[in-house]
Amino acid sequence: MSTADSSEDAVLHWLRRRLAQDPRDSPELRIGHDAALVPRGGPWAVTVDSQIEGVHFLPETPPEVVARRLLAVNLSDLAATGAEPAYAFLALTTPPGFAHRRFFAALLAACESWGVRLAGGDLASHPTTFVATLTLVGRKPPRGRWLRRSGALPGDVLWVGGTLGESAAGYRLLALGARLHRGRVQGLPDLPRSLRGVARKALLRHLAPTPQLALGRWLGRRRRCAAMDLSDGLSRDLRRLARESRVGAEIQLDALPYSQAFAALCRFLEVDPLALALGGGEDYVLLFTLPSGESPPPRFACQAIGEIRAGAAIYTVGNGDRAPLPELGWDHLKPSR
Amino acid sequence: MSTADSSEDAVLHWLRRRLAQDPRDSPELRIGHDAALVPRGGPWAVTVDSQIEGVHFLPETPPEVVARRLLAVNLSDLAATGAEPAYAFLALTTPPGFAHRRFFAALLAACESWGVRLAGGDLASHPTTFVATLTLVGRKPPRGRWLRRSGALPGDVLWVGGTLGESAAGYRLLALGARLHRGRVQGLPDLPRSLRGVARKALLRHLAPTPQLALGRWLGRRRRCAAMDLSDGLSRDLRRLARESRVGAEIQLDALPYSQAFAALCRFLEVDPLALALGGGEDYVLLFTLPSGESPPPRFACQAIGEIRAGAAIYTVGNGDRAPLPELGWDHLKPSR
Repeated sequence: MSTADSSEDAVLHWLRRRLAQDPRDSPELRIGHDAALVPRGGPWAVTVDSQIEGVHFLPETPPEVVARRLLAVNLSDLAATGAEPAYAFLALTTPPGFAHRRFFAALLAACESWGVRLAGGDLASHPTTFVATLTLVGRKPPRGRWLRRSGALPGDVLWVGGTLGESAAGYRLLALGARLHRGRVQGLPDLPRSLRGVARKALLRHLAPTPQLALGRWLGRRRRCAAMDLSDGLSRDLRRLARESRVGAEIQLDALPYSQAFAALCRFLEVDPLALALGGGEDYVLLFTLPSGESPPPRFACQAIGEIRAGAAIYTVGNGDRAPLPELGWDHLKPSR
Repeated sequence: MSTADSSEDAVLHWLRRRLAQDPRDSPELRIGHDAALVPRGGPWAVTVDSQIEGVHFLPETPPEVVARRLLAVNLSDLAATGAEPAYAFLALTTPPGFAHRRFFAALLAACESWGVRLAGGDLASHPTTFVATLTLVGRKPPRGRWLRRSGALPGDVLWVGGTLGESAAGYRLLALGARLHRGRVQGLPDLPRSLRGVARKALLRHLAPTPQLALGRWLGRRRRCAAMDLSDGLSRDLRRLARESRVGAEIQLDALPYSQAFAALCRFLEVDPLALALGGGEDYVLLFTLPSGESPPPRFACQAIGEIRAGAAIYTVGNGDRAPLPELGWDHLKPSR
């Protein structure tokens, strides 16, 4: 890393090189991956993720919403390893007057419903900033394997575990003043009635993502697959999966899972639906590969979006064109949506 | 917890009651304690602690210093369980222009020297705030027991693992403009030459505390002891140990470990040395009890400061007086030094 280059991937690359100098290092011990597997190879997967006011959520977001989202994004990282969630450890930094009771009641209820025990933590105060960091520990299911980003082979089919871009659209709606109140979209009088349903879905995808733990465990029982969690946008995250597997890929633009209603919402938001689907980020669905001919059960509502190719290049194919995958996505060290 | 009462102990009390409603709960799963022991009773101890700019360290503190301190305060929590450190997971939130390379180089070197592997993490950016949260995982040493806050009995001797109040004095020196540069105190021209040595020691105690891991492991091989980490001041932390052990205590003020030189530094700082020793906080030494007649080896430089008593009251004895222990110490939700 040159001092000039402080993008997230550059910092991580430099850090991995430093860690790799240590002969005890193993690929199981990883920064910037979905979760670390300890001791080497398991049986524990550990992940850590922060939710920061003004970065991951808007000021005035109810503490219950932050609590549930904090757990969900961490569970999504565990889902990407195929783990069963077990323990959570919270570091909570809050400004004066913070409603601890509301935050914890929601967090404990969400932990209960996902089978997680809140096992420890640290409380701190800051004059202005609300930061919640959760460390989550999961265990390998009895008959499961750990999922990894590596292992994709040319000819494998590339899948996503759900629709793309909706969370990013939800964030834009919030930034324009939209709020969900008792399940209804409020605060955006301009929003056409016909878009209320898709707007509500987008807000829910952003505020209350559903971690794909069952899909992760199903993938962990496959003979071979590569998998990761889509948090920084398909464009950026697919590059990471391809790099770890030393392969390229081809994405069918027509196959990207988003609806006509979503495209209409994007027109209202004056954003390109394709840009949100490829680079919006915070989708919190799994990106994975399976050998050709194998497919996940319909209950997981997955979508095949392309194919793994030999080489290192990643292309999109659509409208008769073949073009390099655009550089989109979210760099955590250069946040700009 | 009433909404009016949002002190740290009140939040923790409310939270423990909520957790205790869960029949699967065990005393090994703890918030606000030094570390959680998972699965129930071990073999892993997990602790999490944050360092926040403007709260735990002053703005402009070099990233190397923050990195080493972050590791040290977490290691001190592990020391209080008797664990051997194993893995670290970092959540790092930094403002634009942060020197990641300097931070990580120092953190990795410190991890190396304490036998810790940096195994995973998360990088994020915030417009203004620097928050670093470390989750540390330790394992139970082969022949050791876990240390707990409970288990002290009337007649046991109360010990501390080092001097008290120096870290708080160091913080005050920093707030007045003092800096350590190549091991020398600078930036405070008023400071008498005779106080330079003790000021340097106080700054080091604050900036670079030394976790007492070896003492913790030694205590883990005793037949019986209660132990915890002194982070919020003797007054507050002793109350916690006494509550968990359901005992009272008597502290000999004359036995509190601070030097004449420290008292002179406190006169310069216009603070009562006793107030710093009892309530300054961030001492990061162990507070523990041993049965009468047993004492730690001299290499640990521990000091007996009093005795465990039946009942719940905690007294100080000195100058012919016996008085209730003053309510001092640091509440993490109401920070005021």
